[in-house]
Amino acid sequence: MTIASRQLANAIRALSMDAVQAANSGHPGMPMGMADVATELFTKHLKFDPAQPKWADRDRFVLSAGHGSMLIYALLHLTGYARPTIDDIRNFRQLHSPCAGHPENFELAGVEATTGPLGSGLATAVGMAIAERHLNASFGDDLVDHFTWVLAGDGCLMEGVNHEAIGLAGHLKLGRLIVLWDDNKITIDGAVSLSSSEDVLARYAATGWHTISCDGHDPDSINAALEAAKADPRPSIVQCTTVIGYGAPNKQGTSATHGAALGTDEVAAARDYLGWTAEPFVIPEDIKAAWAEAGSRGSAVRSAWEARLVASPQRAEFERRMAGKLPADFSLQPYLDDLAANPQKVATRKASEMVLGAINAQLPETLGGSADLTGSNNTKTKDQAPLTADNYGGRYVYYGIREFGMGCAMNGMALHGGVIPYGGTFLVFSDYCRAAIRLSALQQQRVVYVMTHDSIGLGEDGPTHQPIEHVMSLRAMPNLDVYRPCDVVETAECWALSLEKADGPSLLALSREGLPQLRTDVSENRSAKGAYRLKAAEGPRKAVLIASGSEVEIALATAKKLEEAGHGADVVSMPSWERFDAQPESYRDDILPGGVLLVSIEAGTTMGWERYVGRKGLRFGVDSFGASAPVKALYDHFGLTADKLAPKIIGALN
Amino acid sequence: MTIASRQLANAIRALSMDAVQAANSGHPGMPMGMADVATELFTKHLKFDPAQPKWADRDRFVLSAGHGSMLIYALLHLTGYARPTIDDIRNFRQLHSPCAGHPENFELAGVEATTGPLGSGLATAVGMAIAERHLNASFGDDLVDHFTWVLAGDGCLMEGVNHEAIGLAGHLKLGRLIVLWDDNKITIDGAVSLSSSEDVLARYAATGWHTISCDGHDPDSINAALEAAKADPRPSIVQCTTVIGYGAPNKQGTSATHGAALGTDEVAAARDYLGWTAEPFVIPEDIKAAWAEAGSRGSAVRSAWEARLVASPQRAEFERRMAGKLPADFSLQPYLDDLAANPQKVATRKASEMVLGAINAQLPETLGGSADLTGSNNTKTKDQAPLTADNYGGRYVYYGIREFGMGCAMNGMALHGGVIPYGGTFLVFSDYCRAAIRLSALQQQRVVYVMTHDSIGLGEDGPTHQPIEHVMSLRAMPNLDVYRPCDVVETAECWALSLEKADGPSLLALSREGLPQLRTDVSENRSAKGAYRLKAAEGPRKAVLIASGSEVEIALATAKKLEEAGHGADVVSMPSWERFDAQPESYRDDILPGGVLLVSIEAGTTMGWERYVGRKGLRFGVDSFGASAPVKALYDHFGLTADKLAPKIIGALN
Repeated sequence: MTIASRQLANAIRALSMDAVQAANSGHPGMPMGMADVATELFTKHLKFDPAQPKWADRDRFVLSAGHGSMLIYALLHLTGYARPTIDDIRNFRQLHSPCAGHPENFELAGVEATTGPLGSGLATAVGMAIAERHLNASFGDDLVDHFTWVLAGDGCLMEGVNHEAIGLAGHLKLGRLIVLWDDNKITIDGAVSLSSSEDVLARYAATGWHTISCDGHDPDSINAALEAAKADPRPSIVQCTTVIGYGAPNKQGTSATHGAALGTDEVAAARDYLGWTAEPFVIPEDIKAAWAEAGSRGSAVRSAWEARLVASPQRAEFERRMAGKLPADFSLQPYLDDLAANPQKVATRKASEMVLGAINAQLPETLGGSADLTGSNNTKTKDQAPLTADNYGGRYVYYGIREFGMGCAMNGMALHGGVIPYGGTFLVFSDYCRAAIRLSALQQQRVVYVMTHDSIGLGEDGPTHQPIEHVMSLRAMPNLDVYRPCDVVETAECWALSLEKADGPSLLALSREGLPQLRTDVSENRSAKGAYRLKAAEGPRKAVLIASGSEVEIALATAKKLEEAGHGADVVSMPSWERFDAQPESYRDDILPGGVLLVSIEAGTTMGWERYVGRKGLRFGVDSFGASAPVKALYDHFGLTADKLAPKIIGALN
Repeated sequence: MTIASRQLANAIRALSMDAVQAANSGHPGMPMGMADVATELFTKHLKFDPAQPKWADRDRFVLSAGHGSMLIYALLHLTGYARPTIDDIRNFRQLHSPCAGHPENFELAGVEATTGPLGSGLATAVGMAIAERHLNASFGDDLVDHFTWVLAGDGCLMEGVNHEAIGLAGHLKLGRLIVLWDDNKITIDGAVSLSSSEDVLARYAATGWHTISCDGHDPDSINAALEAAKADPRPSIVQCTTVIGYGAPNKQGTSATHGAALGTDEVAAARDYLGWTAEPFVIPEDIKAAWAEAGSRGSAVRSAWEARLVASPQRAEFERRMAGKLPADFSLQPYLDDLAANPQKVATRKASEMVLGAINAQLPETLGGSADLTGSNNTKTKDQAPLTADNYGGRYVYYGIREFGMGCAMNGMALHGGVIPYGGTFLVFSDYCRAAIRLSALQQQRVVYVMTHDSIGLGEDGPTHQPIEHVMSLRAMPNLDVYRPCDVVETAECWALSLEKADGPSLLALSREGLPQLRTDVSENRSAKGAYRLKAAEGPRKAVLIASGSEVEIALATAKKLEEAGHGADVVSMPSWERFDAQPESYRDDILPGGVLLVSIEAGTTMGWERYVGRKGLRFGVDSFGASAPVKALYDHFGLTADKLAPKIIGALN
């Protein structure tokens, strides 16, 4: 191979500037600046096989600086992935092109994570690196033994989640995680020095990382740094000193190259500067051949790995776990039958711990954790040992006070495959990790958020800790299933549904306070329909009370008073809006019929309940911030007791 | 004064453990561990006067580790603040007590910030320290010259926002900011070493901080460290080595003291250990007197300051700004009159920049900024110089890629008083700073969030950057006014309303794309009613189309087609739900009458619009994640064009 590295890199530069120019939209600066580093990585270090892009033991490469999406599109195309084709690249940023504005894991094999929200990609890679070591502990070096690479910019490093992610990675000594920092000294607003005076490498060193620097335009310097990074037992950050937009002679080194097309004149000037004479979207044959050869590097390694897999006694289990399939005999029925026989009054957070006992015993792939609220979130079952730098086989992660980092890490675990992550915090702190939850949903990943203390029912900790708008605002998020179970049975049902949903996250909103078991019929997962009639009206039906979670008990008590006053009332438990909305109209109309008073009762914002009770229904909840007091005092203060609700409903009926 | 420091500190310990015991709820560990440090700070260093708790030039003290709320309640009581009284403390964590579970700025003078969400207090203090230097630049040392102190625990330091906050503070060389780190080596889950291996001081040093350590139970060591911190020109972190729950002989040093009452036996044992013989809630007279004397330290300093204020030619302006009153002659009318005469088709983000030109010229108290999206958020007006370490008088903060840190800093600026902060990012990244927005709302602070690129209308950047659920989920937050103006006139109106609201935050959701000016009547702020009839039906009214922001133009085009088909249709522009809901029923019924088809059009989730269109109305929007494509292609793809909407509405009418 006589093609110089620089020529290979220029192919990336040309595709990037041409695609951005054609779209008149995009970010040429990063791909052009990091083309040399990426070329060395993909032609000499990264373990991958474009012919088998889902090879389980491939290295993972995460483009955390997702705005530079043309870098990964160019790399995938040049190394021989089936997609993107050159036509896909021509359609960069157009409707239905897999070459979206930011890289999307669900569009292209080889795009390991959806990135763009800054900092999240690197934090996601930490989860991949944890999953790799965790699976290695079970399946050994023969089957699991790969690196996780990240390309990150200053934005990724400045975001708060970076601190959480690298703190966790340093603590867990994830030596197979390597971050390539595009140190181009430019952000959108101008020089990094406008807003930061940080010694980045010193900060990383302070959290237990190996640090090393290279000239990001010198192949020898790059390769030496990457070799050192691979050899070091700590996670590594490689400072790659680069010029943003390298090759655009009049704009390189400035923020002008960051987020806009270079313009036809500057593209032409760059062609001259780089000595690139090919037409737009054309790669000279010799360069194409050299890239294809680099792309075929991994084929033999992959074949050898497959031979080891075929010979492994663990093959079936490994394949099952990597495919994300639950064991065929997985069942919570014995657990539910026991509840039916021995009803339990427990908080749903405790109910979650109980069912996790049954789940974790059957599913070796669950990997739990909490952002420093283990005893409050009830996320740890007795059999779970901590996952530590000394025991990656542990099945419980002490994430520390790092909610956003936890959410991103769980995304990375799910994206890696082989594990089903779940993690807990207080529901109010879903605000801290909301961007991670959204990325779970967008990336279609099975992550289970265990969010406890789900209302004013948490009591004395007061307004800073009491969710009001959270359940509703999470229901508004696409592809996230939100569950708010009312008792120990529904909690088990909602957990079962969360595990069954392989293409998206679920969030369980769980009570702090004890709740009576309201169900003893466990023959069917009634939560699967999202809402169901828990109690039918005894007298002629005048009202339907719809409630979720801790308010179902209150709805039942209220209905009793209505019945006593001669008003028949159904009580509907609605653990999941998303699932109810997916039912046929006939079912929904049966549960929420016309001609009666529809009433919602939920200890959160009433905004949104018009969806089910209409403009003329009654909505009871909490539309202000909460207060600090014992739970009973709060429910009385906010009017959410049967004694206070029943007269209002009767008043509306009369 | 012959009372030993330790005895003064034990008064804090006794009140803390007794109040938590009485409530059987709370966090005794931190107050007992940090009692010695707090005693030195409040008796020897902190500048304050309990008789004038709102004294503008007082030092600010922020209890970032807000769960240790009994520490500040004890300090305020002991130093002589009017509240909390001892009865308030007896009612710790009970309904209507100002001694809430976590400290609340709106309950007690002396509580400078509402804390509890970890990390946010420290980040808020950074904003206070910026405001102090900024006002000092205008009003000089005579009027503004104080420190900002923070007490933070490991949780505050581990959260991601800590990285953002200290990066900003180090960059801006905020030497009057001093963080007291309660280094007790314990978190809720157990030892800090379960989840972190970080060298905290090295990390702070890497971001430009001065670091120093002390024995948190040795007054001499503490005072030496605080003196060094005050003297250093950099922001300082003081590592205070402490024992959590100090004084509880069987539980101290463990997480058992963190978040639960000690129990009567251990409280009794602690009394023995500490030599504290007084009854619960009783402070011996000599100790009480010594604390009162310490509390009176600041009186003379405050009097001297008041004399300088009275003599200052800047007195009126200083008092106006600290009172948060806009100038009597502030008006946007000339600007609006000009728009009426010369209509403008601009993106509402550009419209925001235009009206900010008029605002910033009249209001010296506005302090703008952006999280590294200045040119995209259009947050900087030409007259604004950057606020830097060399020029604290600048009126524009380059926050860097630190959305959460920016939000918290703005809260701190508003809490400090004297400035009205506003800051920008993309609306989708409200997810990154949502916890800060919630704290703006809870703390009742005037902070204006300038959130641009507010829908799929941002185009090619795709789903990671396109808000779907964000506007709706923000509407669900208590005490936050969300505005989505439709044109350049409404943008000015919404800005005016945001500035007028002194007791809470506002959020402006602004378009990337150009929008025609739809209003030339500017005699009245029509946005003030939240929604209004922009166009009345020409034919007999059959439908009312309700829209916000960029979809109002589309609603008008759709209405035109309906009218052409013989269906009279109103168009209602609804820039603010919160304001519309506050109107009298007669107004609301007039705008949204019965007996017609109600239709909502908004390029975001349709969940929630049932509030206005009912269960039988039509809701048009985007209920999935977005896509990457040019804006026109996206609106067509998601069916939000007059050509696609009109037939559906006509179908429903027929």
